[in-house]
Amino acid sequence: VWSQKAVKEAKPVGKVHIAATSESTNFDRIPRPDDIRYSANPAYVHITTNNTIYGTQWRTEPAVPSGVPLVADTSSDMYSRPIDVQKYGLIYAGAQKNLGPSGVVLVIIRNDMVEAGSKSIPTMLQYRTHAAENSLYNTPPTFGIYVMGEVFKWIQAEGGLGAMAERNQAKAQLLYDFIDESEFFRGTAQTQDRSLMNVCFRAPSEELEAKFIGEATKRGLDGLKGHRSAGGMRASIYNACPRRSVEALVAFMKEFERSNRGAAAALKQPAI
Amino acid sequence: VWSQKAVKEAKPVGKVHIAATSESTNFDRIPRPDDIRYSANPAYVHITTNNTIYGTQWRTEPAVPSGVPLVADTSSDMYSRPIDVQKYGLIYAGAQKNLGPSGVVLVIIRNDMVEAGSKSIPTMLQYRTHAAENSLYNTPPTFGIYVMGEVFKWIQAEGGLGAMAERNQAKAQLLYDFIDESEFFRGTAQTQDRSLMNVCFRAPSEELEAKFIGEATKRGLDGLKGHRSAGGMRASIYNACPRRSVEALVAFMKEFERSNRGAAAALKQPAI
Repeated sequence: VWSQKAVKEAKPVGKVHIAATSESTNFDRIPRPDDIRYSANPAYVHITTNNTIYGTQWRTEPAVPSGVPLVADTSSDMYSRPIDVQKYGLIYAGAQKNLGPSGVVLVIIRNDMVEAGSKSIPTMLQYRTHAAENSLYNTPPTFGIYVMGEVFKWIQAEGGLGAMAERNQAKAQLLYDFIDESEFFRGTAQTQDRSLMNVCFRAPSEELEAKFIGEATKRGLDGLKGHRSAGGMRASIYNACPRRSVEALVAFMKEFERSNRGAAAALKQPAI
Repeated sequence: VWSQKAVKEAKPVGKVHIAATSESTNFDRIPRPDDIRYSANPAYVHITTNNTIYGTQWRTEPAVPSGVPLVADTSSDMYSRPIDVQKYGLIYAGAQKNLGPSGVVLVIIRNDMVEAGSKSIPTMLQYRTHAAENSLYNTPPTFGIYVMGEVFKWIQAEGGLGAMAERNQAKAQLLYDFIDESEFFRGTAQTQDRSLMNVCFRAPSEELEAKFIGEATKRGLDGLKGHRSAGGMRASIYNACPRRSVEALVAFMKEFERSNRGAAAALKQPAI
């Protein structure tokens, strides 16, 4: 969804080539190296590092042709793990997942990319405008920037990005391990591409999914409904989500599975 | 300054005609009706209702050719007084003066203007995008919107826009009356165009201005330095500034004038 938006915005200003997509399998995986076909002389290569809707995540950056800048929308996994900024020409991340309140975007851009940008697009959309003015060309979203600063201090106090990565890995593992051993729930993303931020899973029927989400919400386990394009359930376990919340979710999933085994088994009977 | 920015952004997408400007007198006034020369068939007429830097303000909307939409940047006086939205095709206002924190913009736009906008500009800059999605096309700046709602409730509880206008008129009058009777301070904007939001004034010399600003700051009367393009002093007395702050400023100005009359008189002596 997010790369499609990037494609849409790029089309009026340049030629767009889709180097790889997992659309044919409903975006259940990250493209394999062999799936990627770059155009002859790409100006840049764009990826979205984490797919919030289908629950997939790039574990490592794709190989790009020599000298071609990698551009990444890292909105939903920025600072959930270390990031090697030297591999990127441009990183942009809406704050609202791991960084702070909505309404502010973190951008890390190489100086040559600042210079290379078009001068015929609106002033506010040119990175050079903000680079030249230290992000003070306009009155910036001060509250959001302040909160981001506080979040950065919190990340450092908690042990930095390495510690965040370990914690997020462990949280996701708890959930995926249970989903894999469950005979009731199943994950939707391919195993090796599963997101550590958004854990997407299904129950045996849409009725049971609605029941699960309703009962979970009553227990204070809120926001579990999957995105409307994906259906099912989604647990978003960003930096701010503590391990005990994930433990509570797994405990509830176990309980729900026990109570609804009968209904699930009935679904497997052939209709009369 | 703000209209010049609007001119700069409009140029890549259309022809720009400057219908009137007070640049020749350093923006010390609002154009008189006779100064305004519209082009033959304007797509729209743009004004900035309040000039924060030079301290001028449109008291009423300019007459525009029949059927031509008036577009206004009302960032610095929105909801400081009643506004007849029917006179406008488009009103836009950055929140950070009277409405709420920076990082959110209030837009009031006529349906036909939504439809009339270019479809070749970036999606986020098309008003139709936000109109179609009830301002939820992207994750909006939730905190800023929430605070704006609280400010709107506060304005209503205080008596509404009529009460705001009376209060702002009275606050500005206090300051302008003193400036007019002072033999030390002088206002910079022409009397009939003075802003009720930003009161700009000068002292007899730049040295005395620096001294005034320094001493005022020590008294807790902060932010009085004029914009670097205008020099001098500027008291910004938006909705949130209470009358007692203006009274404190006037009291300090009187005291400063008494203590520095000698220095001012010396300036009037011919140099030896």
